[in-house]
Parts: sequence; structure tokens; C-alpha cells
Amino acid sequence: MILGEVTGARCVQPSPAARSALRPIPAARVSIHDGFWGERLRVNRERTIPHGFAQLLRAGNLDNLRLAAGAAGTYRADADSGGSLLPFLDSDVYKWLEAAGWELGRGDDPGLRSSADEAIAVLARAQRPDGYLNSFVEAVHGGRPYTDLPWGHEFYCAGHLVQAAVAWHRALGDDRLLTIAVRAVDHIDREFGAGGRDGIDGHPGIEMALAELARTTGEDRHLALAARMLDLRGRGSLGAGRFGAAYWQDHEPVRYAAEVAGHSVRQLYLDCGAVDVAVELGDEELLAAARRRWHDMVRTRRYLTGGLGSRHRDEAFGDPYELPPDRAYAETCAAIASVMLSWRLLLATGEPCHADAIERAVYNGVLSGLSRSGTEFFYVNPLQRRTHRTFEPAGHGRRMPWQSCACCPPNLMRLLSSWQQYLATGDDAGIQLHQYAPALVRTSVAGGEAELEVRTGYPWDGRVDVRVARTPDHPWTLSLRVPRWCGSATLSVAGGAPVEVAAGVADRTRAWRPGDEVVLRLDMPVRRTEPDPRVDAVRGCVALERGPLVYCVESADLPGSAELEDLRLDPAREPLASPRPELGDGAVGVDVPVAGGGTVPAVPYHCWGNRGAGGMRVWLPR
Amino acid sequence: MILGEVTGARCVQPSPAARSALRPIPAARVSIHDGFWGERLRVNRERTIPHGFAQLLRAGNLDNLRLAAGAAGTYRADADSGGSLLPFLDSDVYKWLEAAGWELGRGDDPGLRSSADEAIAVLARAQRPDGYLNSFVEAVHGGRPYTDLPWGHEFYCAGHLVQAAVAWHRALGDDRLLTIAVRAVDHIDREFGAGGRDGIDGHPGIEMALAELARTTGEDRHLALAARMLDLRGRGSLGAGRFGAAYWQDHEPVRYAAEVAGHSVRQLYLDCGAVDVAVELGDEELLAAARRRWHDMVRTRRYLTGGLGSRHRDEAFGDPYELPPDRAYAETCAAIASVMLSWRLLLATGEPCHADAIERAVYNGVLSGLSRSGTEFFYVNPLQRRTHRTFEPAGHGRRMPWQSCACCPPNLMRLLSSWQQYLATGDDAGIQLHQYAPALVRTSVAGGEAELEVRTGYPWDGRVDVRVARTPDHPWTLSLRVPRWCGSATLSVAGGAPVEVAAGVADRTRAWRPGDEVVLRLDMPVRRTEPDPRVDAVRGCVALERGPLVYCVESADLPGSAELEDLRLDPAREPLASPRPELGDGAVGVDVPVAGGGTVPAVPYHCWGNRGAGGMRVWLPR
Repeated sequence: MILGEVTGARCVQPSPAARSALRPIPAARVSIHDGFWGERLRVNRERTIPHGFAQLLRAGNLDNLRLAAGAAGTYRADADSGGSLLPFLDSDVYKWLEAAGWELGRGDDPGLRSSADEAIAVLARAQRPDGYLNSFVEAVHGGRPYTDLPWGHEFYCAGHLVQAAVAWHRALGDDRLLTIAVRAVDHIDREFGAGGRDGIDGHPGIEMALAELARTTGEDRHLALAARMLDLRGRGSLGAGRFGAAYWQDHEPVRYAAEVAGHSVRQLYLDCGAVDVAVELGDEELLAAARRRWHDMVRTRRYLTGGLGSRHRDEAFGDPYELPPDRAYAETCAAIASVMLSWRLLLATGEPCHADAIERAVYNGVLSGLSRSGTEFFYVNPLQRRTHRTFEPAGHGRRMPWQSCACCPPNLMRLLSSWQQYLATGDDAGIQLHQYAPALVRTSVAGGEAELEVRTGYPWDGRVDVRVARTPDHPWTLSLRVPRWCGSATLSVAGGAPVEVAAGVADRTRAWRPGDEVVLRLDMPVRRTEPDPRVDAVRGCVALERGPLVYCVESADLPGSAELEDLRLDPAREPLASPRPELGDGAVGVDVPVAGGGTVPAVPYHCWGNRGAGGMRVWLPR
Repeated sequence: MILGEVTGARCVQPSPAARSALRPIPAARVSIHDGFWGERLRVNRERTIPHGFAQLLRAGNLDNLRLAAGAAGTYRADADSGGSLLPFLDSDVYKWLEAAGWELGRGDDPGLRSSADEAIAVLARAQRPDGYLNSFVEAVHGGRPYTDLPWGHEFYCAGHLVQAAVAWHRALGDDRLLTIAVRAVDHIDREFGAGGRDGIDGHPGIEMALAELARTTGEDRHLALAARMLDLRGRGSLGAGRFGAAYWQDHEPVRYAAEVAGHSVRQLYLDCGAVDVAVELGDEELLAAARRRWHDMVRTRRYLTGGLGSRHRDEAFGDPYELPPDRAYAETCAAIASVMLSWRLLLATGEPCHADAIERAVYNGVLSGLSRSGTEFFYVNPLQRRTHRTFEPAGHGRRMPWQSCACCPPNLMRLLSSWQQYLATGDDAGIQLHQYAPALVRTSVAGGEAELEVRTGYPWDGRVDVRVARTPDHPWTLSLRVPRWCGSATLSVAGGAPVEVAAGVADRTRAWRPGDEVVLRLDMPVRRTEPDPRVDAVRGCVALERGPLVYCVESADLPGSAELEDLRLDPAREPLASPRPELGDGAVGVDVPVAGGGTVPAVPYHCWGNRGAGGMRVWLPR
């Protein structure tokens, strides 16, 4: 049944025939060994992922699956969802398993392996003989599948199962999950496949998983089912629900909708699937629609932090330019989903704007969701928190060790455990570096194997040294992304003089020699960023950025009597970078000149909220 | 059982012993005969109230009660609440009946009377022999009362029944509803009264109704039950629900909470009850707490339009100064509830700030909820609507003939049907005019009957002529509110020279003679209003006001190619008033000078959205 072979792990793996401008490099061929990302990947592996398994045990996610496997007990879901039981708790187990799979691929860990084995064994037992697998339906809903497509999240959960299974297959050659996943998908396919019942899930996500499954199994029917589900969406079959048909992107056909709409994570997961299916089928119209939506989103609906989703009520994109900093929803999952989508579009098109977007999201709105300790999380990532708040339910403004709807924590885990895959792509033509970290990158180019050694203090420092450690004689092209935020960059090659390079991609084609050094220097002054004049909510304010990082002022850093809400930037004086070693090796803060004299310190946005609940703001009034 | 007697209708009627600075005048002794309010009251009587009854029939509210009375069928509630059946639909019938009661008190109408008789007869049949009455519990919930206090709205519905019953008793001397209401309250009292089960409703509202019932029946137990419910709230008995304990004001005791919090309408209805109970029991601490919360709310959480509630997700007050214009929730019911609360505080304290607040709310955030036709409604009243919106579910940005949660329309009806009661108060010391409309006001002062004849083009024109039509010889005091918005006002008495009067109350004590004329002149230039610098969402903008009216620019008034979102006020030129007769007799618009030359017209905020869905903004960037 499994036709694909273990060709090296990639979290997105276009088939050889796919229309893909760039080709991902297998995870095992890129390693991050130090610096900003080295530390974060270490914390993810040593603290966040084990913490996640403990929380899944504590919160009942595994016990719910044990119920489906026949154990006695009651389905558990935290109560703060207004009394209704959350039906998608299995997906958190799957996301955790995906993270564990990537992580074990990076290096064995007996404790992690044993936790994962436990979870996989429960899944195998929970799956019904007919292949169906969903703890909520089996334990609560009387075992009747597919009776509540709008809210039931059954395909959504199955999609996450598939993604975990694909990761285990690719990273470890372990097909226990893949066997389960294929049987679960077959159950769906029998009822909803070509000629069957027309049905889509209220929460997209399965589409990209099915495309990845097809890439893994070589089975056309998996891709066909994904394409069918994309075609069926936008016909109103889900009804208006509480929030209107756009909430689940069922208001316009996926291949025609010009703008992102509705629930942000739903839209972004959907468009991941649209891109995956489009590149596999050569469906230019579908790809063009996803690209158009992406550009519209980045232009009119994205927060400076890369956060997405302006509304709490329906976790939705707002209208164009509706970007309130205080009520930003900016769910951690939406920022992660945007990385997943931007990565797919980067592969499909090769356009560096997508790598820029990954950078903005990851360094700001994604990492803000995770505490420095690695064991506390934000679900919502606002750009402003007032110091004085009347009353706040648990989990608002304060990082929490887990959440009753805990979609974000394991999503962070799986992104970080596969993060090295986002650094570079490679093919016969050469190697493309998209993100910068101290790393080794190996891949084959025309003529043979090449290996790059990257040294950098990024994101604190803008110098990136790339040493060609190994290369064939045959010429190939080394491409380096010059971020859009950078106003002045130079590149020097093999001891040559530095040459100005423009934002976009700087590439050099030559017959490289081992030991050749390429130095990219990205000028990193503190930038004062003006908002788009159509963003009403931050008119008259500026934000401070440096390199890929957005900064913020926290009330914890203000002198005793000062109030964050009264702070005004002094536009006559320059904000300046200053070392903040307590935030990490080489870390840099900003000294913000304020009206009335003196300065107040600003910290990178992703560091906020690590000192208890307090005020914070990104956009500072002038 | 009914100890009170028909002493003249008042919608709030403090007992003779209550600590009340001012005394309401019976409805029948104030009549509005023309002008701005004359037209609106006519539309309410002739169009809105009959439309309301038809909608209650269409939507199933009366049929639900018929189910409770034994008819066959299924409980009906519109589906857009996410599948859950709304349990509070009876309250819309009660609010409509309250409006009908006040309206019949203003003059008979056979059609209206027959509709009301039909509804009352259904209620009499739906009430169980033990007094319990609630269509949802009887028809859906298996008839088990009080099993879901947080969300069931049973006391809330009973409270609205009581308020309707009190109106019918006071306005018409008709006690059919009062008999039903007392039996329903007794059912609650038996289970939850002193010595019984501790229990409060997730939605306050019954407290003020019980106080009014006590004022009507003279039964101490009704007041004691209200006081008991106020004392029980704030102890966390409702749990955290989806939105935290503050959502239903159960986070802090009512007599201690310093700030408004949670669901706006819940907080405001609760504080109405707190004031009613406090003045009846002489509970200074409770009154002081409600006053403190009111002042905090007006200072930090009220929109310029008098709208209240900054958040869609939980229909809640936000943090202090969190006042986004686009995502303002500003439910019509919250503005109405603020009028109810401000009226109680005006009676209790005599302070004109409360009458100012009534004025701001009614002329802006309340009337905006009702179309000029009288038959279409806004539930949410934002201060900005972008021209371009990706997708909008039905009812957003467009007035609707009814709503699936139709609390606001009958709330508007009952406020308008009793509006003349808010114009004036009177006691032995004299007469206090709080709101201005062409009206006759009769009341007894020390020494005998007095009658005032008010002529004015308010709110379009700032001149108010008050003629003393009848007066005893004995001196008494005539007080006129000088609105806070007014920078320059004069008063002339009985042909005397105009004298400058300051904002607040201008009063004159003398032995009035029939035919004496008092002329209040309120200067009404167009004002450019700057926001509080702490309101982040409208920094760099100004609003335009004239008299009590807030103005807005609608995209419908812009020349072809101009976009509302690009509009900038030209601060170098004055905005000027200009006639807009199509908006009513004497109506005044504002010509707004804009950058690039020329002007665009602004209309009173309460008139917006009467030309289909389009863009609108109150706060204009400079």
C-alpha cells in the first residue's frame, strides 16, 4: 500500500512532477547548531514537548481515546467552552505526535519515544475495525460518524492524524501511524469520495493532509479526495452557522474567492491545501486564487507582528485595515498556519516575499505564543495590553501552562521541531538560503554534493557568513534572501569587495571552491515604522523594529509612577539599540526616547509577558 | 393583594419614603405634542408597535407560549444562534406588552388593545397552576424550573413580566398582568426567598422589577427578594461560564465593585435594581457603589454616542478607554439600559449629569437603533463602518425588520412609549425640566397646580420657550437643565434681560404669574470634539457635534470617486451647520471641510444607515 519510499523527511514534499519553483531539503540534511534558534529548538525538545505529553495525559486527551478503545469512563473536555464538549481534542494528540516524529528524526530520545509509542498504541486500539477513528464520536456521539459536518471536526482530526503519520513515515520510516491514517482516510473516502456523498468539514485542514498523503502513498485517490473537497467548498453546504458562511470559507468557491475571509486558521489551512493540490495537479487557476488571497491578506489584514485575525468573536479576519492592537486575536495557530502557507507559496513560486512573511511571523507572532521557559503559552497575541484591567478570566494576559482548547501548544511544537526545514531549499541549480541561523546545509546540486556552513548572530546581528565546505566543480548558484526590511545590504564573495545588494534575492553563480566565504551584511538600525494610514486603530503612532524583530514597551520596564498609557515617543530623538544580555546571547533591546526626557527600554515583542501580567504596547503614540 | 392604587403612571415610581431627590411626574400629566419627539412617538405608536406584534407572531414568541398552554407544536427560535434554542423569547412579549400598556395609557387604540388582549390571554393560559410561567422551560426543558440559573434567563423573563404588569397597573389600572406576575414571582420567592435556596439569574433584571413590584403592591417581601438577590451576586455562584464571572457581575459583591464589568446590559440592569433597592431601603452604601460605577463608566467606557459595550465576543464593556469605533458593540439595549439607570440616578441624586447622559444616549446611540420608517432595527451600533467589507452575514451593517435575538426592538418601543416621563420631575419645591420638547407639563407644586407650556425646535435649535400657563400664587422654583455640551447659554425670565447661565441647572424661584415666559437660549455652534488621549482607537481624529447630536459622514454622501477611508478633515476651516429638511422639520446637517478643498455633508449619527448598507464614520482623521 505504501508506494512512496523514505526519501528523507520534509514537512512539505511536492512530488517530482509538481509545479514547484523550489525544492525542500530533507530535514536530516540541515542542522541548526547554536545561536537564537539552537536555544529555542533545545527548549522545545527538552521542555516543551515532554510538557505537552504530560498535559495531554492530564487534560484527558489520551483518556478520551482510551474510551474509544473500550475503557470505562467519561469523555473529558474543560468546562470553559460554555458547557459544550470540544469535539476536536484528538487533533492535539496528533499534532504532538507529529512534533515527536520530527524530533525523533533529529535524534533519538528514549523517553520521548516511549511517550509516542504509548500514544500510537492507544490510537491503534481506538480505531474501529472499519477504520473510523474519533474519540468524541465514538465515546460521546453514539458512534455515528459524519452527522455534524459543520462543527464536528472529524475530517479536521483525520487530517492531523495524516500529517503526523506522514511525518513518522518520512522522518523515521515508521509506518504504524500511516497504517492507521490510511484506514481512517479510506473510511472517509468510501463515504465522501468521487460518486459518494458531497460533504466538507466546517474546519478545513484535511485537504493539505490528503495531498501530503498522496505524495507519500502515491495514491491518486487521496489527491482526488482533496481536490473534491476543495471544489465542494464555497457552495453554502455548511449553512450560515452562528457567524455566516464565510466563517468556514463556504461563501465563495475556493478557486474564485479574491480575499481571505472568516475564521483565520480555517482560511489559512484551506489555502495550504489549495496550494498543495494546485501544484500537484498543475491547477494554475487554483494556485492563482491562493496567491491573490495571500497578497490581499498581507497588504490589508496582517498585523505588524505577522499576527492574523482581528476579531475575538469568530476568531476571524476583519475588514481590510481593521487591525486593532488591543483586541487583536492573532491566534498563535494562525501565525503558524501562515508560516505553513507562506512556505508552500515560497516553494511554488520562489518569490522571496513569502520567506519575508515567514520571518516576520516566526520571530514575532509565532514565538510570542511560547514562554522563554517553553512551558507556558499564549493563545491570543495582542499588540497592546492595557495596564489597568477590570477583570480578566484565567489565561487572558497571562501565559498558561495549557489551554482547554489547546490547539496552539502542539502546533508550536511541530513547527519548532521541523524549523530547520524552513532555512533552505536546493535543487540542481543551486542552494537558496531563506532564513538565517548557525547551521550546516547539505544537498545535492548539479555535479554532486554541496555543503554550506552558516555562521551568524541573527536576528540580533545582521552579518551572515556562509562558508562553502563542500562543492562539486560544476558551477551552481548560491541565493541569499535580502529581507524587505533591510534598507542597506552588501554581499562579498570569496574575499571580493562588498557589493550593494537590493532587497529580494542576491544570487551568485560560479564554480565554487571549498573554503569560499560569502558574507552578507544586513544593516540593522532601529526603524521607526509608520502604520498604513488606513489602519484607523493605530493612527498617530509609530512602532519600533530592528532587523526582523518588532519591539514593544512593557509596563514592567517603566519607572515607578509612569503609566504606559501616558507614554509618548519623542520624535526629535532617535531610538537606539542597546544590549540586553538577559534575553539571550547577543540580545538587543531598544532605548525609546520619550516625551518629557529620558528613555524607556523596549524588548522584542516575542519576549513580552514573561514577567507576569502587565501592560504592553507595540504602537507608541508620538 | 394589590395594595397600591392607581396613582398615575410612572415608569419608575419611588415610594413616598424612598430617598429620592426628585419625584417623577405621572405620564398622563406630560404630553409631547409636536416637533422632533412628536414625530418619533407617532411613528412608534402607529408603525413600530404594530410591526412588533406582527413580528412576535411571525417569529413564534406567542406560539411558544401557546405550547406552554398546551397547544401542539415545537418551540421556535431562529437558527442563527448556533443551533441552541434561545430560552428568553418570552421577555420580548413582555417588553412589547409594557410598550403597549404605556401607549394605551397615552390614548386608546382598539387594534393595539386587541393585540395586547390576545397576548395577555395566552399568558394566563400558559401559566401553570403553581404560578410558574416560562415557555422554554415548559415546552422544551421538561417543565423543570430553575435547573440552569446561569443561562436559563428564568428570573430575567419574570422580571420583564413584572415590568409589563406594573405598567398596565399604573397606566391603565388593568391588573390582569399583575395577577399573573405576582403569582410568577411568588413561585420564585417560595424557592429562593429568605431561608430558601441561594440562587441568582445569569442575567440580572428581576431586581429592579421586584422593587417596582413592591412599590406597586406594597409587599415588603418583593423588595426583600430583590435585596437578597443583590446580596447573593458577586460570590461566584454562577461559575465562570465561557466568559468569566464578571460576565454576569458575579466576580465582586454589588455593593463593593468599583467598576462596571462584563456584559453591558447585565451590568446596567443590575445597577438599576441596585439603585431602586438602595433608595427604598436607604442603603447608602449600595447607592454609592452604583454611583461610583456609573461615573467610572461615563468617564472611561462610554462612546461619544452614549453607546456602551466595546466587545462583540461577550457583549461586554472593555478595559478603560478601550473604545474601538468599528468594533463598537454598543447594543441598542445597552444604551436604553443606560437611560433607565441614569434616570434612576437622576431621581435619586438630582444631579444634572445624569440627565446629560440620558440626552447623549437617547439622541444618538438609542435612536440609531431604529430606522426612520420605524420598522427596521440595528442591534449593534458602531461608530464606523468601512465601505469595503469582504463578507457580511445578514443583519450586519443593514437594518433588519426583526432579529433572532430580538431584545432591542421591543426595548425601543417601551422606552419611546414612556419617553414623555423623562422630560420633567416635580414636587412641592417646583418643576425641573430635564429634556426639551414641545410639551405640556402639569404637576402640583406647593400651593396648587402648575402647568408649563414648552415650545422649542430642539434638538435642531437651542431656544426653549417655557410659558407658565397655570400657577398657584405661592412661590416655587423652575429649574432648567443647561446641558454640559453648551458653552454659552442665557436665561431670561418674564421679559427680563438675558442672563448668562452655566452648565448644570439654572433655577429661578419666584411667585410665578400665568403668562410668565422663560426663555433659555443654548448656543449651538458645530463643535469639533477631541477624543480623550487615552482612547487609542481614535487618536488623531475629531468628531463633530452640534447641540446634543453627534454627526457622522456616510459614504452615500460622497462624490463618486471619493473613498470614505481616505477622507481627512481640513482643520483650517470651520465645519458649519446647514439645513437638511429631508431629515425632518428644521433638521440641520453639518458641512465638513475636507483636505483637498470643498466640503462633504455630515448627518446626525442617529440617521445613519437609512439608505442601505454603506460606509460611515463618526471620528474623522485630521
